[in-house]
Amino acid sequence: MFMHNKKLQYTVRVSEANPVLASLMLEQFGGPQGELAAAMRYFTQALAEEDPGRKDMLLDIATEELSHLEIIGSIVAMLNRGVKGELAEASLSEADLYRSLTQGGDSHTQALLYGGGPALTNSSGAPWTAAYIDTIGDPACDLRSNIAAESRAKIIYERLINVTEDPGVKDTLSFLMTREIAHQKSFEKALYSIEQNFPPGKLAGKRQFADLYVNASQGNGDSDGPWNSGGEWKRLDDVVGQIPLDGGAGSATVKLTEEEARDLSTFMQRLESRVDEQATPAKRH
Amino acid sequence: MFMHNKKLQYTVRVSEANPVLASLMLEQFGGPQGELAAAMRYFTQALAEEDPGRKDMLLDIATEELSHLEIIGSIVAMLNRGVKGELAEASLSEADLYRSLTQGGDSHTQALLYGGGPALTNSSGAPWTAAYIDTIGDPACDLRSNIAAESRAKIIYERLINVTEDPGVKDTLSFLMTREIAHQKSFEKALYSIEQNFPPGKLAGKRQFADLYVNASQGNGDSDGPWNSGGEWKRLDDVVGQIPLDGGAGSATVKLTEEEARDLSTFMQRLESRVDEQATPAKRH
Amino acid sequence: MFMHNKKLQYTVRVSEANPVLASLMLEQFGGPQGELAAAMRYFTQALAEEDPGRKDMLLDIATEELSHLEIIGSIVAMLNRGVKGELAEASLSEADLYRSLTQGGDSHTQALLYGGGPALTNSSGAPWTAAYIDTIGDPACDLRSNIAAESRAKIIYERLINVTEDPGVKDTLSFLMTREIAHQKSFEKALYSIEQNFPPGKLAGKRQFADLYVNASQGNGDSDGPWNSGGEWKRLDDVVGQIPLDGGAGSATVKLTEEEARDLSTFMQRLESRVDEQATPAKRH
Amino acid sequence: MFMHNKKLQYTVRVSEANPVLASLMLEQFGGPQGELAAAMRYFTQALAEEDPGRKDMLLDIATEELSHLEIIGSIVAMLNRGVKGELAEASLSEADLYRSLTQGGDSHTQALLYGGGPALTNSSGAPWTAAYIDTIGDPACDLRSNIAAESRAKIIYERLINVTEDPGVKDTLSFLMTREIAHQKSFEKALYSIEQNFPPGKLAGKRQFADLYVNASQGNGDSDGPWNSGGEWKRLDDVVGQIPLDGGAGSATVKLTEEEARDLSTFMQRLESRVDEQATPAKRH
Amino acid sequence: MFMHNKKLQYTVRVSEANPVLASLMLEQFGGPQGELAAAMRYFTQALAEEDPGRKDMLLDIATEELSHLEIIGSIVAMLNRGVKGELAEASLSEADLYRSLTQGGDSHTQALLYGGGPALTNSSGAPWTAAYIDTIGDPACDLRSNIAAESRAKIIYERLINVTEDPGVKDTLSFLMTREIAHQKSFEKALYSIEQNFPPGKLAGKRQFADLYVNASQGNGDSDGPWNSGGEWKRLDDVVGQIPLDGGAGSATVKLTEEEARDLSTFMQRLESRVDEQATPAKRH
Amino acid sequence: MFMHNKKLQYTVRVSEANPVLASLMLEQFGGPQGELAAAMRYFTQALAEEDPGRKDMLLDIATEELSHLEIIGSIVAMLNRGVKGELAEASLSEADLYRSLTQGGDSHTQALLYGGGPALTNSSGAPWTAAYIDTIGDPACDLRSNIAAESRAKIIYERLINVTEDPGVKDTLSFLMTREIAHQKSFEKALYSIEQNFPPGKLAGKRQFADLYVNASQGNGDSDGPWNSGGEWKRLDDVVGQIPLDGGAGSATVKLTEEEARDLSTFMQRLESRVDEQATPAKRH
Repeated sequence: MFMHNKKLQYTVRVSEANPVLASLMLEQFGGPQGELAAAMRYFTQALAEEDPGRKDMLLDIATEELSHLEIIGSIVAMLNRGVKGELAEASLSEADLYRSLTQGGDSHTQALLYGGGPALTNSSGAPWTAAYIDTIGDPACDLRSNIAAESRAKIIYERLINVTEDPGVKDTLSFLMTREIAHQKSFEKALYSIEQNFPPGKLAGKRQFADLYVNASQGNGDSDGPWNSGGEWKRLDDVVGQIPLDGGAGSATVKLTEEEARDLSTFMQRLESRVDEQATPAKRH
Repeated sequence: MFMHNKKLQYTVRVSEANPVLASLMLEQFGGPQGELAAAMRYFTQALAEEDPGRKDMLLDIATEELSHLEIIGSIVAMLNRGVKGELAEASLSEADLYRSLTQGGDSHTQALLYGGGPALTNSSGAPWTAAYIDTIGDPACDLRSNIAAESRAKIIYERLINVTEDPGVKDTLSFLMTREIAHQKSFEKALYSIEQNFPPGKLAGKRQFADLYVNASQGNGDSDGPWNSGGEWKRLDDVVGQIPLDGGAGSATVKLTEEEARDLSTFMQRLESRVDEQATPAKRH
Repeated sequence: MFMHNKKLQYTVRVSEANPVLASLMLEQFGGPQGELAAAMRYFTQALAEEDPGRKDMLLDIATEELSHLEIIGSIVAMLNRGVKGELAEASLSEADLYRSLTQGGDSHTQALLYGGGPALTNSSGAPWTAAYIDTIGDPACDLRSNIAAESRAKIIYERLINVTEDPGVKDTLSFLMTREIAHQKSFEKALYSIEQNFPPGKLAGKRQFADLYVNASQGNGDSDGPWNSGGEWKRLDDVVGQIPLDGGAGSATVKLTEEEARDLSTFMQRLESRVDEQATPAKRH
Repeated sequence: MFMHNKKLQYTVRVSEANPVLASLMLEQFGGPQGELAAAMRYFTQALAEEDPGRKDMLLDIATEELSHLEIIGSIVAMLNRGVKGELAEASLSEADLYRSLTQGGDSHTQALLYGGGPALTNSSGAPWTAAYIDTIGDPACDLRSNIAAESRAKIIYERLINVTEDPGVKDTLSFLMTREIAHQKSFEKALYSIEQNFPPGKLAGKRQFADLYVNASQGNGDSDGPWNSGGEWKRLDDVVGQIPLDGGAGSATVKLTEEEARDLSTFMQRLESRVDEQATPAKRH
Repeated sequence: MFMHNKKLQYTVRVSEANPVLASLMLEQFGGPQGELAAAMRYFTQALAEEDPGRKDMLLDIATEELSHLEIIGSIVAMLNRGVKGELAEASLSEADLYRSLTQGGDSHTQALLYGGGPALTNSSGAPWTAAYIDTIGDPACDLRSNIAAESRAKIIYERLINVTEDPGVKDTLSFLMTREIAHQKSFEKALYSIEQNFPPGKLAGKRQFADLYVNASQGNGDSDGPWNSGGEWKRLDDVVGQIPLDGGAGSATVKLTEEEARDLSTFMQRLESRVDEQATPAKRH
Repeated sequence: MFMHNKKLQYTVRVSEANPVLASLMLEQFGGPQGELAAAMRYFTQALAEEDPGRKDMLLDIATEELSHLEIIGSIVAMLNRGVKGELAEASLSEADLYRSLTQGGDSHTQALLYGGGPALTNSSGAPWTAAYIDTIGDPACDLRSNIAAESRAKIIYERLINVTEDPGVKDTLSFLMTREIAHQKSFEKALYSIEQNFPPGKLAGKRQFADLYVNASQGNGDSDGPWNSGGEWKRLDDVVGQIPLDGGAGSATVKLTEEEARDLSTFMQRLESRVDEQATPAKRH
């Protein structure tokens, strides 16, 4: 069960209200790399996790990410606290309010639609969606997804720090960024605690294709690197000449029943294409 | 520039039409871990990549993933080839068609809406969305995202193989699964070819919080593991007692202008909450 | 800050694994009336709430809803616990696994894509979206939204109880349903503690239109009720005869600059419609 | 059946073209609290409503909301009427057009993608989605949802009025806002005409949990109010000490078949976590 | 302004309740080719249309499509009228209700989430989205979009007719299908009433590329037809040999300021890729 | 199978970095009328196409559209190449970076979230969705959809050209625009090569309703044109007087079983509406 204490995990001190900066901060509130996505990624994994150690870790970090959602949401709420009263009380002239709302970012939507409250959207106003969550229920994959997600969140915080002048906001963002580094380390430890982590799953795959590098993009710019060269790789350069790689026809076929084949043949004949020249509307111009 | 050859990279041999199995296969066509997501993830990275070696690798693999999209789409098309003619030509009785469409999965939508063609949805009919793509334009992060994505795609193929009896489909799925293993290896090689890959970005974070493990979920089930114990970690157990971690008040504050403060005060008074007992509609019941 | 204890708020006892029932339960996990929507609705309101009493209440209930998300997610995880192992270990024949996955509901996607973990989708596999959240930052509105949301959640639980035979699941769902009743009461109390709760906001509107009932749907079936009849209502029956209600022209106009008017005129002439008979492709058939 | 008359329900008089203001107005055209959402909410309820009186009311109001969609859409069309011709006829220099498109809001997308026509998006360009509609087919709930929706729409109109200088637009928006007040009253009358409206549905819930207030958020800021105190409430403060509330173990369990248990055990062993220290890539940095 | 009459445009006679068939019918209620998409496509075009004749036509057809939305929604409501009462009143045993809800299609979500009311989703439960609407505000394009949309809607109705045994439903669907044919004809007439309808817009394009057919897919299966052969076409077969088609370098370049170039160079060096062999985690397995 | 050559189909020469212009260009990268939508529309059609000629054409054009996606994506990458380094290296002051990010359009999201890489969103940041793709698997419909789609894409390019001063960008956009014209012609040729292209499908519809024009929008502004007048049309003006068009009751009915009828009756009684005056909360104000 969750419990809550009204103290934040880290103090939020904002120097002045600024709704445009607020709208940028939403990237880590309701954006794809933000704290709700993090919390829900780990929480859904925890619920289905069978290993007690990983379950505990996932619950620890999910709970902390919810606390970070609270921190970043509090930053947004503080930055919007000026415009909230002005809009609700109509204290400025219409022209001044209009100007204040359309000065940049998507702050207009934050004010008009959400009344200055932190909304679960990214900085462009796209609503948060569970499509952001890539949990698939295999620990060796999910931990890799978590490592990647933490690294991305770290960078988004770094970018937000780079555009923020407010020292209090900067300080709190630095704390949040640092915690992503710590979480990334935890997830790496947990991944490498699984003996059979590569390839994930049980099936080994077809030996002859596991070390093959297909040079599908050619021409000026072809390069060598450890990802396609060296003792671990066979490289296929004559791609068109070698396909299909199974030595078959390279076509797609299915065995149909007689009835299915007859119906399909009727369908094809009804819609077959004449190959002689056709007058068409567009031709006239 | 892209070119296309009508031969597939791997031959597709389907034993019999089966629209329900087709709808399951969509997971790798228009699903979150499917081939369009893979192709677009790498392609968008390639366009902005400054390093020539990584750019070449990303284009190679993006191009191959498009070719895999073609293979899995061809499997779907073959599996639906029976129902396509039957529905378009209305060759069965209505009752038989109705039965054939509602026998499981989401094959009904595939038939009614897409006419048996492969649709860019997952196996539940959710349309593909770019929200699946987690590219953020930092190579040390994007490569981690790619490693994770390949591992997930490998598992989805494994699950599809496990539910497929058709030997031809199984064989082609095994090829596709194996290629994900190869791609995962390439991306790992590329990640470890970047010297400064951890933490990603330039900012180091706050030292005192980088090795801290916050035991936010407590009670029966607390566990130790390399992700929270050992020489690299300090652990915080008395969480409520220690917050906020900066030693401040743990509150969120903003400095408002006089006008902002006045408006907000008006807003608060207008909407303040009486704390005495209120009769409410629900009470009557 | 959030804290977590590994005990659930209410014990979950599931009699047997059943992935189809699991997929139905998702309605309250990742569906529009489910627990994540509830938690996020109240949590986002709490962050921007200025009234200390309401803020406390919103945090109390948001935190409890997160704990309910954990309970319903645990039910899903238990119901899927059988298929999870079978699919990952491929212990059944392909035909048996295929049958078990396509027996109804959207359990196929839950298994293939999420590996049996609880996914943030509704029972049809539509991913959770913040578009479900109707917070607008005005307490007199948001509390009404909360009352309505709790009433809806109560009914979805009632429907799930009605289709569940498992006594343990039924018992836990009854607990969750009851809590929605309690929350609805709290939100009603809070709404009626705001003196100026109707109409919400500051503007009173145009007097002559506030008590007008427009009988826009006519013909057989027109009815009287307290919503359109009695001393509080004026009713408009001759709608077409009376529009526009402001006594003007009923048209839409804008004053354009000379340049704008000239451009628009060019645009209109370029695309104007000939009214004489036209031969068209479709005519030939 | 619907019929249409080319007169608007209320005259629209716009003083000058202004594409940025147009983009703000979209909030009530294709936004979550806008007129399409209103019309579709009531229309879908009307189609399934069994009570003749409520069905009539829902059709009356749905039809009027469609007429309001027409009014707000006409405001948008008028405000965009200048840029429409300029962009289509390329009458300005590229630099002037570019400046006029990027002066604020999301007017750039309105011009480039929709050619200045009113689009079914909110003011940030997020496409309208049926996820906005919370109809669940129970009148006692749906009427509460309608009351809440009308109150929200009222406030969004108030905010738009507060940022609009144009007297004609202001006047029309005031009309639309007032109608939301009238609709809210109708829906309240209809709700209280249902005797058994609380709790909605048939099931009464578990007595011991219906009057319980769970103080899940604690610490500085805990407050009393009619929503958690007084004769109608029992309050639970020692939350961690009392869970689970059923007196059980607070765990989640399921009875598995022998085969299921064996598969799960294999799965767990294959993926179990070693708890000794692991060297990991991130460690090297 | 819209008006409504409670008579339907066409009588709906359903022989027996059938929630699975209801869920298929949703394709034309809240699906991409359904009646809401049609109504909103034409209605948004009408609001911005400058030509009075086309505006009138678009309003006529939009209004009729709303009336068709009412008809198809009424079919859904009738087909669900049995399950609605059973679920709300819990009149069947839980097992019977469970069976009745999971017998096919997505009828489970229709019952649980929407209580049997017609929902604005497609037959797989994907919520309606304005992304279905392709209006761009150019009449010569929008009319083509309308022609295509009507042709698609006609086919979806045909498919629904083919799976429906109920003679009353079949009759009403035939009416709706026929109206799509009539609308398609109207839109064709309107398109060919615009003199300058091809190419749409004002700009003519680059002469040398307007009649060029690029044979980008080669190999076995290359075909000739009026779309790539004959007097109107030049064909490019040696694609790789001829690109770029402008005779330039085929690269992408931008002139950067000195500062921009310096920053980019720092960025590249920081993240450059070592090309020597790297030990990676995956290698160990 | 797809192959790639690192030369672009057309050279991209950008005069100076400009992230706001980049964000406008996204309309043709990840927008509804953009190149990914085009490529995927034709590619999905190709996979299911039975006619070899059309299949070849669809693959040719799909492949070329992918190459156009590469071109427009390269334009975006070049326009963002300045801000990418500045943000990653934090070379400007925070205030300068903030200003550069919030100067218009949605360039702030492009920088913060995507690091300046081309993202699969439209110019307002709405993620690309397969809901944009209207393929239904009937060639006579799909070709009409393709014709319409090409005409729309042509106009979006024209609008982008009109707002672009950069001569290199203008030149490349003109190439891309021209290719849409060529593709539109190919699809028209292919449509008119199908003998039975109108009405699409096999069913002819109800004769008496195929030539009927329903004048559903009346009043001032009613117009005549070839779409509603002349020898091919019967026109219905007295709409309310004539409905339902089948001469029936205009109602919706279903035959219920006795049990279903009884449950429904219980449901109706439980929720029936009292028609006498009700005191309601809103009344008090």
